[in-house]
Amino acid sequence: MIRAGIVGGTGYTGVELLRILALHPGAEVTVVTSRADAGQRVDKTYPSLRGLCDVVFTPPELDNLADCDAVFFATPNGTAMTMAADLLARGVKVIDLSADFRIKDVNEWEKWYGMSHASPELVAEAVYGLPEVNREAIKQARLIACPGCYPTAVQLGFLPLLEQGVIDAGHLIADAKSGVSGAGRKAEIPSLMSEAGESFKAYGVSGHRHLPEIRQGMQLAAGESVGLTFVPHLTPMIRGIHATLYAKLTKPVDLQALFEQRYQGERFVDVLSAGSHADTRNVRGSNRCQIAVHQPQGGDTVVILSVIDNLVKGASGQAVQAMNLMFGLPEGQGLETVALYP
Amino acid sequence: MIRAGIVGGTGYTGVELLRILALHPGAEVTVVTSRADAGQRVDKTYPSLRGLCDVVFTPPELDNLADCDAVFFATPNGTAMTMAADLLARGVKVIDLSADFRIKDVNEWEKWYGMSHASPELVAEAVYGLPEVNREAIKQARLIACPGCYPTAVQLGFLPLLEQGVIDAGHLIADAKSGVSGAGRKAEIPSLMSEAGESFKAYGVSGHRHLPEIRQGMQLAAGESVGLTFVPHLTPMIRGIHATLYAKLTKPVDLQALFEQRYQGERFVDVLSAGSHADTRNVRGSNRCQIAVHQPQGGDTVVILSVIDNLVKGASGQAVQAMNLMFGLPEGQGLETVALYP
Amino acid sequence: MIRAGIVGGTGYTGVELLRILALHPGAEVTVVTSRADAGQRVDKTYPSLRGLCDVVFTPPELDNLADCDAVFFATPNGTAMTMAADLLARGVKVIDLSADFRIKDVNEWEKWYGMSHASPELVAEAVYGLPEVNREAIKQARLIACPGCYPTAVQLGFLPLLEQGVIDAGHLIADAKSGVSGAGRKAEIPSLMSEAGESFKAYGVSGHRHLPEIRQGMQLAAGESVGLTFVPHLTPMIRGIHATLYAKLTKPVDLQALFEQRYQGERFVDVLSAGSHADTRNVRGSNRCQIAVHQPQGGDTVVILSVIDNLVKGASGQAVQAMNLMFGLPEGQGLETVALYP
Amino acid sequence: MIRAGIVGGTGYTGVELLRILALHPGAEVTVVTSRADAGQRVDKTYPSLRGLCDVVFTPPELDNLADCDAVFFATPNGTAMTMAADLLARGVKVIDLSADFRIKDVNEWEKWYGMSHASPELVAEAVYGLPEVNREAIKQARLIACPGCYPTAVQLGFLPLLEQGVIDAGHLIADAKSGVSGAGRKAEIPSLMSEAGESFKAYGVSGHRHLPEIRQGMQLAAGESVGLTFVPHLTPMIRGIHATLYAKLTKPVDLQALFEQRYQGERFVDVLSAGSHADTRNVRGSNRCQIAVHQPQGGDTVVILSVIDNLVKGASGQAVQAMNLMFGLPEGQGLETVALYP
Repeated sequence: MIRAGIVGGTGYTGVELLRILALHPGAEVTVVTSRADAGQRVDKTYPSLRGLCDVVFTPPELDNLADCDAVFFATPNGTAMTMAADLLARGVKVIDLSADFRIKDVNEWEKWYGMSHASPELVAEAVYGLPEVNREAIKQARLIACPGCYPTAVQLGFLPLLEQGVIDAGHLIADAKSGVSGAGRKAEIPSLMSEAGESFKAYGVSGHRHLPEIRQGMQLAAGESVGLTFVPHLTPMIRGIHATLYAKLTKPVDLQALFEQRYQGERFVDVLSAGSHADTRNVRGSNRCQIAVHQPQGGDTVVILSVIDNLVKGASGQAVQAMNLMFGLPEGQGLETVALYP
Repeated sequence: MIRAGIVGGTGYTGVELLRILALHPGAEVTVVTSRADAGQRVDKTYPSLRGLCDVVFTPPELDNLADCDAVFFATPNGTAMTMAADLLARGVKVIDLSADFRIKDVNEWEKWYGMSHASPELVAEAVYGLPEVNREAIKQARLIACPGCYPTAVQLGFLPLLEQGVIDAGHLIADAKSGVSGAGRKAEIPSLMSEAGESFKAYGVSGHRHLPEIRQGMQLAAGESVGLTFVPHLTPMIRGIHATLYAKLTKPVDLQALFEQRYQGERFVDVLSAGSHADTRNVRGSNRCQIAVHQPQGGDTVVILSVIDNLVKGASGQAVQAMNLMFGLPEGQGLETVALYP
Repeated sequence: MIRAGIVGGTGYTGVELLRILALHPGAEVTVVTSRADAGQRVDKTYPSLRGLCDVVFTPPELDNLADCDAVFFATPNGTAMTMAADLLARGVKVIDLSADFRIKDVNEWEKWYGMSHASPELVAEAVYGLPEVNREAIKQARLIACPGCYPTAVQLGFLPLLEQGVIDAGHLIADAKSGVSGAGRKAEIPSLMSEAGESFKAYGVSGHRHLPEIRQGMQLAAGESVGLTFVPHLTPMIRGIHATLYAKLTKPVDLQALFEQRYQGERFVDVLSAGSHADTRNVRGSNRCQIAVHQPQGGDTVVILSVIDNLVKGASGQAVQAMNLMFGLPEGQGLETVALYP
Repeated sequence: MIRAGIVGGTGYTGVELLRILALHPGAEVTVVTSRADAGQRVDKTYPSLRGLCDVVFTPPELDNLADCDAVFFATPNGTAMTMAADLLARGVKVIDLSADFRIKDVNEWEKWYGMSHASPELVAEAVYGLPEVNREAIKQARLIACPGCYPTAVQLGFLPLLEQGVIDAGHLIADAKSGVSGAGRKAEIPSLMSEAGESFKAYGVSGHRHLPEIRQGMQLAAGESVGLTFVPHLTPMIRGIHATLYAKLTKPVDLQALFEQRYQGERFVDVLSAGSHADTRNVRGSNRCQIAVHQPQGGDTVVILSVIDNLVKGASGQAVQAMNLMFGLPEGQGLETVALYP
């Protein structure tokens, strides 16, 4: 039984880890930290967990976490990089859901995240936790940088095209839409229901932090430089990301077959049948990415529709998938849920 | 492995049975009927089930269902009563999620449901499937009448008070609020998002079909006639029922203790700590009823807050709970999920 | 042309005043205060007002407001009571949308609002701004205490019954449901869309600040003490209040006629035809209260359904209605809008 | 006073016309047709109009409409084309909100709409009712083809770029998101709140009927053939369209200035200041289009954000704007409302 710790248990990715791990047969949450709520039962903050979680919040101190086999960081950016080295030194595996170890170019990271990196020496070691790309490396890793929510949806949609070199990689567009839980459990006016409900808007059009992360993964897949315009939007729903991806085909190809072959055997990527549309409700609460492939009017523009639940395949579910791989458990253990429809 | 059939698989209680049974270790769905969609794969209608359900819709004919151990009716009112006798005769247990067998007084049933009852002789045999009241009878039953969604939330909230005779049973009020999935998967204008979204209304104030069902259960618990005003409301959310119950205390009593004792050991009824409020999101997707008990300003009015997910504890989850009891499985098997928060 | 000032222009009642007054033919907003946003254009905060409002936020200082004919306080409780006397002394009429002057019993006010009252001497002078009760007094007033949102919906629903003495005033129930804009434009976690969306809950069951205000108005109407249980609920929509009111009839009466007569000629209270249900969407964005009257199964329980838009008839619209009366304008001027359906 | 008739008064564009015209000082609705509801008061179907509309639905027959000065068709496609000629012959001006007269190439229209055109001879005469393009022609017109909702948002966003020839017109992308009211007031399962709520999906990716309409308008503006990929999405809100438009710049240009100059003096197109994002809530219920212009990271991709209320500037508001022009009234009469925020 894996003893798991969660640093930052009062945010949405934290409580989502608790939801998933509560029923995981091979892992047990032994520590959940929260500076603000230390000493209080976790299920007082989250009544959905009553009867399923007896843990009390503890302060985020190293000694509280050192007995864990794995520690998840469900923290704002900038926390994991200050604690990871010490945990690794004590033999604890680290799975970071924040952005601290995602970008290999530390200068680039510092530019986009506006702080100095506290553990640049660990960046190279960290494995980018996208199992559909890095499965073998994840199995060997001590430190996982879990992909962001947008990057997961966008990369899984573009990868087959880039790997096969069938599109113009210089002019790609990712028009992405996220539910409001992506903004986290933070008291901020734009996330109020009176502000975000019944409305739709783009944000960060001049440049969003997920852009360099997406570009990095796409360039690795393409083996060449990639030109990407990424526009995120806020959608009046709680969970879900829908990425609509546009590329220009450079050679004739059976797109449906290309995607089906790429993801054959992948438990958590589901290529829908030709002509389908993907709908975020069909992956709500599940660890699955569903993808639909279109070539409107037989023209040279490919349109890929890629949907995930931002808190599951876009965060905590994918983190548990990585944990399973790191500890030799079946990859899908604890993740065999069905989307909550309706 | 229980072979389960579902009649009426294209409504919300039908697909919710499919969601729950897809991961149930002791049961397997072998037949799903739909006249309209016969011949089509179930997971084409419900892409959330891709990879988890290989069944094809069949017409709702007896021969297709006779090999089942149990058949669930997730049909409109009036269907189960025409097929139940034949299934029982072939040794198939019947779990009816519709209203056909809920009301013991057939005349009363016919008045409220506006049709003649096709199997009045089975009404007496049918066991009302509320495990917290009828657990032993359910274990022995061949035919279960699953409680309605409002009746589940309202009865679980009032029962401890009525059983102990501490309230004026002649003047009770149940102000209940339901999400829109309670109206079913039917193409009707009032259920459109443009109509039901961002709005709130009462309906059926002059008399709702769940009133006689609730009153019947409450009278059994009270051992006396009960006067109940029941007002249902439509709430702009998909899942969830919140019942706010009002009664006048007739004797001093420790209300919190009374509720905790009544539901001690009940896996799916959770009495919240004193001073709490119940929130439908904390039971979304789970089979749990959460109850909070209040006595405002120490006066003689009791206020009970009772929440369920109308499709789970209010329908399909409770039906599976009954199935588990009927077949000697652990009562909570396949129902050990955590509410989907946020 | 009335020169109007708004203190606290960055909350929802403030921007709603701006929306209404932008098109009011007899008034002009000349000052909008905000300490935090002083110096910034109002339409930068509220792009919906671009082209309709040229005002720049100023600090909330007396000299900035002294040239106004009327000043609205759209502030948290505790602000208006510190500034009202000085404004009145300079000949400015004051319309307070907060709770500072609503409760005539200053001790009671201090108990519920948890602070000392800064202007107890003005409390007696203040006129409770419910035109359907106090029209003539409002016309003469210098200082208006605008009713709260719940109190407006609940009082308008109960008044005809209490005034005629046809119900048991000792055991009344008001089960009220509000959209989330009622919580204001404050950065608080419970108001996040991820928390309040797709969920329903009661709050403040042990005692809500609107209770003494409602009780005060009802006792004036009844001419006797009133026993009221008031339970507010949070509903996953932005605007709207639905109050469901329960009372026991003490004498036979034609309820529909009683309500129609009481509100005959009232421009902003609309008694729906018998058998109707009220729906908050039908008053969204309008200054109207719609009321439906029911007597289920001809029993002795009356059920009144009363709906308003909490920001209009429950706050800023009613405040403008009072302003019109105070300045001798047609009562409905600037308020002749149609609800935004769908 | 213009006597206006509305054919098809029971859909969302019909009731939106009623909402706008109820307060229009220069027009009066004298006839509203509905075959299904003939004989019933309009305000029984729409209680939001109580006190503001005394009209009774009549059958959609010519004689009922011949006394009107203008008749609006708020009907499904295929109705206006069968009645327009007769109305014009009787001197009635026709404003068609459906698609019947939008496409100049009748063969193209018949291909996309799947029926024979009943009045091909009128197609040439019909004026496309986008005032920002065709103002003078609208003033002279007898027959107006009102633009579709998506076409309005997309064209207003692309026009300045196409007219100035600064983008590659061969590879344009319009990623558009609509609220569910765009699907109309039709009893269809995909529009149920349980289906469309809390979810996001694309639809019609292989080809949507608004594509040829958008392309026609864009080609007129560009003076050349246009290559457009148009992907519509369904968004879990009631009102609003957000079009995100992508193009490749072919020459250096001050984009912000270009847009501000193009729409200078346009009452209903508002170019937001540089760096802004457009939000559908800021135009909810108003006839305004708000546009934001971006050039991410100074690259060669232009991103235009264009928002409207699909029922106002995307349908009924724009239709009234056209009526005002046709009858010599101030263009904005009856349309001077403020968006309903929050």
